[in-house]
Amino acid sequence: MSSYITPEILKGTRDFLPKDMAKRQTVMQKIKTVFERFGYDTIETPVIEYAKTLLGKYGEDNKLVYQFKDNGGREIALRYDQTVPFARLVASNYQNLPMPFKRYQISRVWRADKPAKGRYREFYQCDIDVIGTQSLVAEAEIARVMADVFQTLGFERFVIKFNSRRLMNSILGRFNVPPEKQIEVIRMLDKIDRIGEEGVTAGLKEILPLKTIPPLLKVLFFKGSITQKIASLKSYSTQEIEDFFRLCQEFGLDEKFLEFDMSLSRGLDYYTGITYEVFLPDVAIGAVCAGGRYDDLCGLFCKEKFSGVGVAFGFDRIMVAMEQLNLLNEIRLNAQVLVTYFDEATLPNAFKILTNLQKEAINAEIYFEPEKLSKQIKYADKKEIPFVVICGPDEIKKEEVTIKILKTGKQKTIPQTQLTSYFNGYVFS
Amino acid sequence: MSSYITPEILKGTRDFLPKDMAKRQTVMQKIKTVFERFGYDTIETPVIEYAKTLLGKYGEDNKLVYQFKDNGGREIALRYDQTVPFARLVASNYQNLPMPFKRYQISRVWRADKPAKGRYREFYQCDIDVIGTQSLVAEAEIARVMADVFQTLGFERFVIKFNSRRLMNSILGRFNVPPEKQIEVIRMLDKIDRIGEEGVTAGLKEILPLKTIPPLLKVLFFKGSITQKIASLKSYSTQEIEDFFRLCQEFGLDEKFLEFDMSLSRGLDYYTGITYEVFLPDVAIGAVCAGGRYDDLCGLFCKEKFSGVGVAFGFDRIMVAMEQLNLLNEIRLNAQVLVTYFDEATLPNAFKILTNLQKEAINAEIYFEPEKLSKQIKYADKKEIPFVVICGPDEIKKEEVTIKILKTGKQKTIPQTQLTSYFNGYVFS
Repeated sequence: MSSYITPEILKGTRDFLPKDMAKRQTVMQKIKTVFERFGYDTIETPVIEYAKTLLGKYGEDNKLVYQFKDNGGREIALRYDQTVPFARLVASNYQNLPMPFKRYQISRVWRADKPAKGRYREFYQCDIDVIGTQSLVAEAEIARVMADVFQTLGFERFVIKFNSRRLMNSILGRFNVPPEKQIEVIRMLDKIDRIGEEGVTAGLKEILPLKTIPPLLKVLFFKGSITQKIASLKSYSTQEIEDFFRLCQEFGLDEKFLEFDMSLSRGLDYYTGITYEVFLPDVAIGAVCAGGRYDDLCGLFCKEKFSGVGVAFGFDRIMVAMEQLNLLNEIRLNAQVLVTYFDEATLPNAFKILTNLQKEAINAEIYFEPEKLSKQIKYADKKEIPFVVICGPDEIKKEEVTIKILKTGKQKTIPQTQLTSYFNGYVFS
Repeated sequence: MSSYITPEILKGTRDFLPKDMAKRQTVMQKIKTVFERFGYDTIETPVIEYAKTLLGKYGEDNKLVYQFKDNGGREIALRYDQTVPFARLVASNYQNLPMPFKRYQISRVWRADKPAKGRYREFYQCDIDVIGTQSLVAEAEIARVMADVFQTLGFERFVIKFNSRRLMNSILGRFNVPPEKQIEVIRMLDKIDRIGEEGVTAGLKEILPLKTIPPLLKVLFFKGSITQKIASLKSYSTQEIEDFFRLCQEFGLDEKFLEFDMSLSRGLDYYTGITYEVFLPDVAIGAVCAGGRYDDLCGLFCKEKFSGVGVAFGFDRIMVAMEQLNLLNEIRLNAQVLVTYFDEATLPNAFKILTNLQKEAINAEIYFEPEKLSKQIKYADKKEIPFVVICGPDEIKKEEVTIKILKTGKQKTIPQTQLTSYFNGYVFS
């Protein structure tokens, strides 16, 4: 019997090895760079909080929140999302925060869920919000941020679908749908991608008088450009959607990335204005980003009302989509150069070469033992280090150095003094 | 009675607001850049693991590990340190990892501890290790990494104290200290900074024969340069310490940053060769980095032996020290420019200016509402945004733009076409 502990992890949690991490970090960094380009800053909240804080929103009995008692008998929970802790932080700090407050947050959350393909117990959320402004410029800016993120990540095709809660309320009111039934109707409309117009019609028959349905669907599913759709709705409250679309255009957002979609129902209980969802036409993976305007971020924690606009990017879905579209192929580990050495006598020279490369901001490493060159090269191969520098006794005597390019197998001998400028000519990515 | 949830967090956990985060992220990024410069890559392990995995090392009854049962009755724990999960990951993946394997990890750990000043329930660890090599080049490289980190962070003075377990064993053996008493002696020696040589002598009297103590201390506390100290020990096993010191020098590590200190006892149960601790002479905060050579990383999980060298940087202590030494003063939030606007008519032009700045990789933002200029400037002030761009109807007509430098209050009007090149001349941050 072995007395070793089996080195296993919980289902729904993941280890990330260096190559995974290189990809994930590169993608995260690109997303962060876009957020920061627009002046968004990050915050951090604890992973463990009082259960009453984290459960406030989901109801005491929410089984999906990891909960436990600590040694002092306190009821603790693991962060379930980033929105509630953000609201809690704002409620206790708003007097010291610049308003409007623009923040992003990329961190892990936990769900005591049954794991399945693409459903994890521990995963990253990637949120961006601006709060403390009613201006539609915020909606337009967040739309620009979404477009910039997907363009920066290399997606050629993506669609930001948007809708307006105010407009929907106006239309449904005009069709005499009572307020308590509007939510049911909107939920049914949202199913159109799965069940088609016929399915939606059948579903609506359970909710609305038969004669209401065809004219309502005619209004909602009018086909045409965004401008044509808005024009077709001119007898309803279109101010919000018109202003939003105009601001997006003024903000330089290409219309080809936008789609006005009145079947979008997203987050009915929370969102109050413009809502959006982003889809990738080339990958069947569902929405990769979603959110909208809400009215009262901190309602659980204080009487001050903070309206805002926020979206969440689906980091894991984005990774899957990028993998499928071969957008991650060029990402490698950190080291660009392996400096080899032969024996104790050639080691000081190898150290010197290494240090000179590093001084020029080139990521480089030295093999730890004077092994056979073939073994050292095998190590470089395994880490996908593109260049191997060889400098044996002969080369040291001539003050030269040999560079081997692993991809092609070609090698080249140059004066040692030219080594760093040789690599500086390369664009490492 | 208010029905609001008090927006409070657990003692020993922390919220980080944008200004804190800007500092923490800048420091983390600098540390990571050094690690990556030497070809270290990062990994990530789950925050929640099976309790048996995380408790293996600390004993079943370790009260400092946060533990709970999940909905499925599984015994779960929160990551207590990064070493055990790293060992667990290596045990299940070593066949696919390049060997030697060089990894760093900067992430949070949890301790069910009584919080106190500088002692948290949730905090960052920052570890770097190389495993799978016995070569002392690894010890020298990690010493270089430590020196590069503290230099990169801007510390002018720091001392890497080092010692050799093999040498200590050799000396104590020669003084006839039986193996079971060596640990007690080493622990007593480690107290010299707090209780002085007299205190150590008194303590050693409890452990060793009186006549052994003065000659032993004479050997251990010999004063002189590293070379002199090593020379004074030539009748003991000095090979390890000699080779280490020589390799450090060959690797370009300035001797002024090194101190051979035989009172260093660090991690007696774990470390087997060279050990180190880094101190900042200008800040009384204890060791800011520590570690050494160990023999058997994965002993809990598999029979394969992985020897390695690793150190942990005390991230929170480093932040405190940098704050004290004013090394964080220059770090600001992300936005460098605030673009203001006056009304709906001037908004499209403001969008254009903003987009042009962002295209040149300048982090910039637009105020969301056409408020009075003084209010927009107040916002920039609060976020410490250094530049405000003003472009009213007159300026638009003349195709000009006014730049206000908030620090000096000075302003300057230039053609709009020159704006991005104006900012490109500045070095931000």
